[in-house]
Amino acid sequence: MMSRVITLLTDFGYESYFVPSMKGIILSINPNATIVDITHAIPQFNIFKAAFTLWASYKYFPRGTIHVVVVDPGVGTSRRALVIKTRNYYFVGPDNGVLMMAAEDDGIEDVRSIENRSYMRPVVSSTFHGRDVFAPVAAYISLGLDISLLGPRVTDPIKLPIPPNTVSKGFARSSIIYIDHFGNAYTGVRSSDVTIMGLGYGDTLRITVPRKNLEIEARFLRSYGFAKEGETLALINSEGFLELSVNRGSFASRYGIEEGDEVVISIVK
Amino acid sequence: MMSRVITLLTDFGYESYFVPSMKGIILSINPNATIVDITHAIPQFNIFKAAFTLWASYKYFPRGTIHVVVVDPGVGTSRRALVIKTRNYYFVGPDNGVLMMAAEDDGIEDVRSIENRSYMRPVVSSTFHGRDVFAPVAAYISLGLDISLLGPRVTDPIKLPIPPNTVSKGFARSSIIYIDHFGNAYTGVRSSDVTIMGLGYGDTLRITVPRKNLEIEARFLRSYGFAKEGETLALINSEGFLELSVNRGSFASRYGIEEGDEVVISIVK
Amino acid sequence: MMSRVITLLTDFGYESYFVPSMKGIILSINPNATIVDITHAIPQFNIFKAAFTLWASYKYFPRGTIHVVVVDPGVGTSRRALVIKTRNYYFVGPDNGVLMMAAEDDGIEDVRSIENRSYMRPVVSSTFHGRDVFAPVAAYISLGLDISLLGPRVTDPIKLPIPPNTVSKGFARSSIIYIDHFGNAYTGVRSSDVTIMGLGYGDTLRITVPRKNLEIEARFLRSYGFAKEGETLALINSEGFLELSVNRGSFASRYGIEEGDEVVISIVK
Repeated sequence: MMSRVITLLTDFGYESYFVPSMKGIILSINPNATIVDITHAIPQFNIFKAAFTLWASYKYFPRGTIHVVVVDPGVGTSRRALVIKTRNYYFVGPDNGVLMMAAEDDGIEDVRSIENRSYMRPVVSSTFHGRDVFAPVAAYISLGLDISLLGPRVTDPIKLPIPPNTVSKGFARSSIIYIDHFGNAYTGVRSSDVTIMGLGYGDTLRITVPRKNLEIEARFLRSYGFAKEGETLALINSEGFLELSVNRGSFASRYGIEEGDEVVISIVK
Repeated sequence: MMSRVITLLTDFGYESYFVPSMKGIILSINPNATIVDITHAIPQFNIFKAAFTLWASYKYFPRGTIHVVVVDPGVGTSRRALVIKTRNYYFVGPDNGVLMMAAEDDGIEDVRSIENRSYMRPVVSSTFHGRDVFAPVAAYISLGLDISLLGPRVTDPIKLPIPPNTVSKGFARSSIIYIDHFGNAYTGVRSSDVTIMGLGYGDTLRITVPRKNLEIEARFLRSYGFAKEGETLALINSEGFLELSVNRGSFASRYGIEEGDEVVISIVK
Repeated sequence: MMSRVITLLTDFGYESYFVPSMKGIILSINPNATIVDITHAIPQFNIFKAAFTLWASYKYFPRGTIHVVVVDPGVGTSRRALVIKTRNYYFVGPDNGVLMMAAEDDGIEDVRSIENRSYMRPVVSSTFHGRDVFAPVAAYISLGLDISLLGPRVTDPIKLPIPPNTVSKGFARSSIIYIDHFGNAYTGVRSSDVTIMGLGYGDTLRITVPRKNLEIEARFLRSYGFAKEGETLALINSEGFLELSVNRGSFASRYGIEEGDEVVISIVK
């Protein structure tokens, strides 16, 4: 399982020297690496958003791809640095849960704590493990490094809590787990839950948002373009979630919705 | 006409998982593809801005490059998905006009409606054809796919309306077709029109903007640095348009100018 | 000393056609080039910030990498276009000082004025030398071009003034030279200066900012995570500078600090 593709996902932004320094390190170790940016615009220290973004994209990459994530508020403290080998991929990053949603989805085979300094930069700073630890380790893995050489096995990697859902006929209680670039709000309701709810195209949903004291009505449709311009709608999106949207507008802006908001959904007709 | 270069131009932003999912799909089909971002910061659904951005950059890429554009408010409806083969390139995207400014500029040889599901992802979502249709089709073309296998010929692709210009000696009526990163405003007046106008370096222009009830004076110069800092000037820019600018400042911000604004230009001395 | 890696650092932003046009030109001349973005989000015409960003990242790239910088308010005027060969790299860009912090750090071996039009685009615009001059020159160097063919030797490239520091036992007078994505403020105080100051982990610093009439206290720690959430701290960062920070917050936003601000630092206990 080898690939020359290495992806990077950080909260480093696009204007600083952080990301290109990591890329320089990778290309110095493996000049044939193909580096792909997942994104560097994760809101600072937003581990859940990074984890979801990784989960939504990791699986489309070639087998053996090495996914590096650096959203790392604990850099330089005693938090562990991990490599996770799954059925099809490698994941490299801090032990704060950011890798686990994707890694568990693919099937974990081995988890290692990165401790062998031979595969780090000669001097490791206290504040930039992306450059000094994670980038070189990823580059060596892309050259075929056996990850058991990196450090001891880890049996208790940190996991993120998953927001709970309640689903029954005609009803769901969930939360907004992701807001995308267009202001579409993804609930935690999956397409299998939609079947349990008995929801069909053309039905109307009532969505209650307790934090905002809001009640919203939305038709359940197949895609944005089936709604009128500016109409609120719901659909099953490309990731399999029940999504709340405004055709050619932003659901999140119109209603002031934020990630983490609780939503109560019922079929009204 | 084969190339391993695939460009991507979308309104997906840089913070979501959309663009990297497309890149993963492409690299899974053609590990040797070279993927180049045109931009992903097109304002949402701004088809004209995407079309202009493509037109301004497509021609600098190696022969055979496959240009993929996903600015696609009609995704999941009956709008067609197109591949256009031109004299030197391929263009892949929705049938909403976004590809045509560039494709007609290069010379169209064949237009196909993408209908053959063998070259799409096994399950095609209703909301993310960038990942499920356009990315895999582009990757297969980069491997040498004959585009006639994708679907039937299209003879009536949708075109964008081109804003009209009126030009005569000493005078032009046009509109702002593009505002760039520096706030420079491109009028639709071409360098050939400037010859008709009889405009020469050092002349002063009066620019009237009816929407803003504004009259602006600007010297016509060779480049920004020939104006004083903060001075308003006009020049022929790198794309061959008469551009309105402020040296080391933003013309668009100073005068509140927007894309689409009508401008009336006359030589005053 | 040859490499196929070419980096790009500009103030062109991510939404315009400028950067991809440069990439297209490079790939048309050298299809095997590996292009890496340093950043395109340098604030407009901020030559010092571009120079610092280059300095902080150039050295991690493979030997022979060609670093192209286009922050170029004087484009189209008589300012020279330069190629600088250093011990390990090439630097390409305008003669306004933007290349020199990095080039002098690596050790300058040869500086040339780019004048030979054979290595430029056939028509050179007055406003976009990134595309018409710097990109093709970089691509030809990546193919092995002898830079002495580009033009005459330059003995007086423009340098940037370096902000002065004063350091003694327990005391430093410096300025904020860089603010990063997280709002961390880098002073010009180097780790060697910190030794002169006699500063040790756990000490408390008083930082005076005359422009803001501010006095700030901060503990000197090893990394962010050793401070309480929201606590102001100081540390030696990954580039070797004394950095002022707020754990999980933004130092720059909290105190209204800007690049260029003078700071007076003393050890209080």
